[in-house]
Amino acid sequence: MKSLIDITDLSEAELRGLMDTACDIIAHPGEYCEKCRGRKLATLFFEPSTRTRLSFEAAMLELGGGVIGFSDADCSSVSKGESLADTARVIGCYADIIAMRHPKDGAALLASMNAGVPLINAGDGGHCHPTQTLADLLTVYRAKGGFDGLTVGFCGDLKYGRTVHSFINALARYKDIKTVLISPPELCLPEYIKTGVMARAGMVWREAGSIEEAIPELDVLYMTRIQRERFGNSDGYSELEDAFVLDAEKMKGAKPDMCVLHPLPRVDEISTDVDPDPRAKYFEQVKNGKYMRMALILHLLAHAGEQGGRPANAPEAHGLVCANERCVTHGERGAEQLFRRNADGSFTCLYCESELRTSAGLHND
Amino acid sequence: MKSLIDITDLSEAELRGLMDTACDIIAHPGEYCEKCRGRKLATLFFEPSTRTRLSFEAAMLELGGGVIGFSDADCSSVSKGESLADTARVIGCYADIIAMRHPKDGAALLASMNAGVPLINAGDGGHCHPTQTLADLLTVYRAKGGFDGLTVGFCGDLKYGRTVHSFINALARYKDIKTVLISPPELCLPEYIKTGVMARAGMVWREAGSIEEAIPELDVLYMTRIQRERFGNSDGYSELEDAFVLDAEKMKGAKPDMCVLHPLPRVDEISTDVDPDPRAKYFEQVKNGKYMRMALILHLLAHAGEQGGRPANAPEAHGLVCANERCVTHGERGAEQLFRRNADGSFTCLYCESELRTSAGLHND
Amino acid sequence: MKSLIDITDLSEAELRGLMDTACDIIAHPGEYCEKCRGRKLATLFFEPSTRTRLSFEAAMLELGGGVIGFSDADCSSVSKGESLADTARVIGCYADIIAMRHPKDGAALLASMNAGVPLINAGDGGHCHPTQTLADLLTVYRAKGGFDGLTVGFCGDLKYGRTVHSFINALARYKDIKTVLISPPELCLPEYIKTGVMARAGMVWREAGSIEEAIPELDVLYMTRIQRERFGNSDGYSELEDAFVLDAEKMKGAKPDMCVLHPLPRVDEISTDVDPDPRAKYFEQVKNGKYMRMALILHLLAHAGEQGGRPANAPEAHGLVCANERCVTHGERGAEQLFRRNADGSFTCLYCESELRTSAGLHND
Repeated sequence: MKSLIDITDLSEAELRGLMDTACDIIAHPGEYCEKCRGRKLATLFFEPSTRTRLSFEAAMLELGGGVIGFSDADCSSVSKGESLADTARVIGCYADIIAMRHPKDGAALLASMNAGVPLINAGDGGHCHPTQTLADLLTVYRAKGGFDGLTVGFCGDLKYGRTVHSFINALARYKDIKTVLISPPELCLPEYIKTGVMARAGMVWREAGSIEEAIPELDVLYMTRIQRERFGNSDGYSELEDAFVLDAEKMKGAKPDMCVLHPLPRVDEISTDVDPDPRAKYFEQVKNGKYMRMALILHLLAHAGEQGGRPANAPEAHGLVCANERCVTHGERGAEQLFRRNADGSFTCLYCESELRTSAGLHND
Repeated sequence: MKSLIDITDLSEAELRGLMDTACDIIAHPGEYCEKCRGRKLATLFFEPSTRTRLSFEAAMLELGGGVIGFSDADCSSVSKGESLADTARVIGCYADIIAMRHPKDGAALLASMNAGVPLINAGDGGHCHPTQTLADLLTVYRAKGGFDGLTVGFCGDLKYGRTVHSFINALARYKDIKTVLISPPELCLPEYIKTGVMARAGMVWREAGSIEEAIPELDVLYMTRIQRERFGNSDGYSELEDAFVLDAEKMKGAKPDMCVLHPLPRVDEISTDVDPDPRAKYFEQVKNGKYMRMALILHLLAHAGEQGGRPANAPEAHGLVCANERCVTHGERGAEQLFRRNADGSFTCLYCESELRTSAGLHND
Repeated sequence: MKSLIDITDLSEAELRGLMDTACDIIAHPGEYCEKCRGRKLATLFFEPSTRTRLSFEAAMLELGGGVIGFSDADCSSVSKGESLADTARVIGCYADIIAMRHPKDGAALLASMNAGVPLINAGDGGHCHPTQTLADLLTVYRAKGGFDGLTVGFCGDLKYGRTVHSFINALARYKDIKTVLISPPELCLPEYIKTGVMARAGMVWREAGSIEEAIPELDVLYMTRIQRERFGNSDGYSELEDAFVLDAEKMKGAKPDMCVLHPLPRVDEISTDVDPDPRAKYFEQVKNGKYMRMALILHLLAHAGEQGGRPANAPEAHGLVCANERCVTHGERGAEQLFRRNADGSFTCLYCESELRTSAGLHND
């Protein structure tokens, strides 16, 4: 069964196919409004996310399909101790496709292994949120026609910004991408992304201390919200705040065809005086997310009958237990541990993708 | 963009058009059941109201349309600090029309200025609930054929009763209306409505101490619930309670064609022994609300492309800040202060319609 | 108005008709996908139950109908003191059929007496959950072709297990049923079911101390969850736990065509190693529940116009009050007491079916 857990589940050709479908939907909506007649999407939102849930629901309705679901974690079956595996299987009896948001890393993979229908990860803990990346990609594609050779600035919380990591993962497939990383030192992009993703893909990057400094060279500026809680020194927060806030004044230094993205919600990191600027694409980004979800639903339903490979545990990983406390394997009955073995002898949990290092032969408990 | 914030946004001709459409829907439902095929209504209920929300959802489904939405204030984007303006704009990307209920006065106007699609005020704080008034108007229209010359009794909480104020506002357009105001002294109709609305419209009114005293002359009796918390002296509450309770015995004193309305929910101010009386119209009122919402949705969608005027601040009001703590301008980023200047030199907040009096030249902070 | 409050509201012929319809839906889904076009189901879930609610919603959507509803008890009208009778009547203005779950025993009957449209009991307190029984019946019917002569094992919490009681009630109509009751002594099947239902119907039963002991003779094994809170002696719980847990090892002792049912959610009373066994029917049971709800919706809508008898109070019961604190008559305005008189002089509350014994002539308050 084909599901979408991580943006890298889609090949570059599949991504291009989704973007072309989305553009066709934008151009000819009437040809798509009956495609999912008689089909149902279940939105299972164990934690609330109004924007994402409504985007999926709007997408399915615009395809002529139906929607069922729940939108908070207080569902009785969960509180009665039902496993996520069972819940996924039961919901798979009611719908043709599932979109799920869950607070635990790796929950989407676990659910997809049991649902019996295609499953779209709408956000699993701090792990992935691939459909946001689809919205981001389409926005750049519509503005720029492609990705090769772009200079992309990332601003704000690059340490915890899940959408930043995922967008970088997606960009890694293209050529000659330059990135400019604009963040407070405390929130800079993690090393493992620089070395493990960007360097490996031939992406070059530089760090910049402020938007103003970086903006003249950017083709794309990807803004993110800095959550105050994440920024340790609140005095420091106020001082640096301005360097990471975009306003109309700073937009004067940008290229005439630069585009500004933000996964939203934005608080004050983009001043409202930027909104009328045609380079501000963050609300078009919202619509693009809906169109890409429509394309994705069609794609997954078309492949629904196909056999998916079921993930298997690396033989050498027998007995290992994921150390990430937020991984779905903690506290979920029926979630067998699954690892892949890396070239350097470490193991990666297939659910949450955190790394586990063990001494040869030593098992942790 | 045409929206419905306050009942007075609709001209008398438009109101009549809505009522005629509603009557046609009642007579020929089959002609309307596909009118909104492919369209979507978003119900944004920041505070719960099952009756109103389900009425809107039923209305849209009976037009062949789809519904998305949320029904409580615990939506993640709000808790992440997103402005109401942004939320409205995002939801406007997912739906063709919005019905919104919000706890702050004036929230509906602010949202309508940003949504990009028609917005229906389903209740904004203590300010307005225009679609309840539409239900009330249709109920009287179907029973009486029109409004001129009617004697309308209002009973219960006339001080805080938002639906009472709105219905009076609507009746003000008609001729020779007499009203009888039946309430405890603590909950009588505010002066500003008597002088500012009723007197100005040529409506006459008298106060009555009990239903029994007033009922023989009434064409319409509009009952409202008295919330115990509002009634200061709880001993006084018990004593006076009976004077404002309607039962079958008192109905004997009423005209044979009087109609009884109540916006519901009713607690004990209408005894259940009134329910079988054909003059009891409060459940038909529920259905009329649904039909009027259907007519309203069709009306607003038909005019969706038209340019709405964007409200502008009176020049003399520069720097003024609304003093109503429950106004949406308090605590909402991006809600610019907007006032109109009144003939007597005071200002009225365009959002919540509370008045602001300032000394000439003095600005409050 | 025909509603479904208790499984016994359906005659054996009607039950068979529902099962035949469900089987036809399974075989020819395309013939049913437009049957409820233009109709609406309202799901009123005063307490959450994701599985049951989503099953009803999926059922209505697969019939081409629409769904409105609420899924928690925090609906404003209820908190404003509206009676359940009024709520039911209002919702009956918005939908063609209602499925309701409520925490009070007897709530479904009260609502059905006021709704004006067919009402399906989706669970009223500890009283009934008839559509679960429909799912159970269809599962056995599809596996066995009928019910006569079956040996059915019930395992787990037979004292509080509402679905067990209801399934036994349904089986009572068939011939030569043998039951094996497998439970801890603290949770055994109540006497009134043994004498009042099983004995009266000619069903024979025996008690068994463990699954292992009973499984070789079973045609059907109906598993239920034992809630730890119900089991007084937690030490005793651990000791006995294994006797009431089903696993693949114990399945080796079962007939090759035995079927395993469970109303779900299951926690650990069925080991996941049973799931691949073709005799494990509990997930097919989920789908059967949806198909039976589809058949039930069609059946009730087809009979919606018919006059239902309105329950009346036995003359001798005048002044009596139901003693069950969880009965909906406690605390609900407008819920008139209704009893039937039994042969032995006791009375049964028509809402919650609890018995009231009074001395001749003595009324309780």
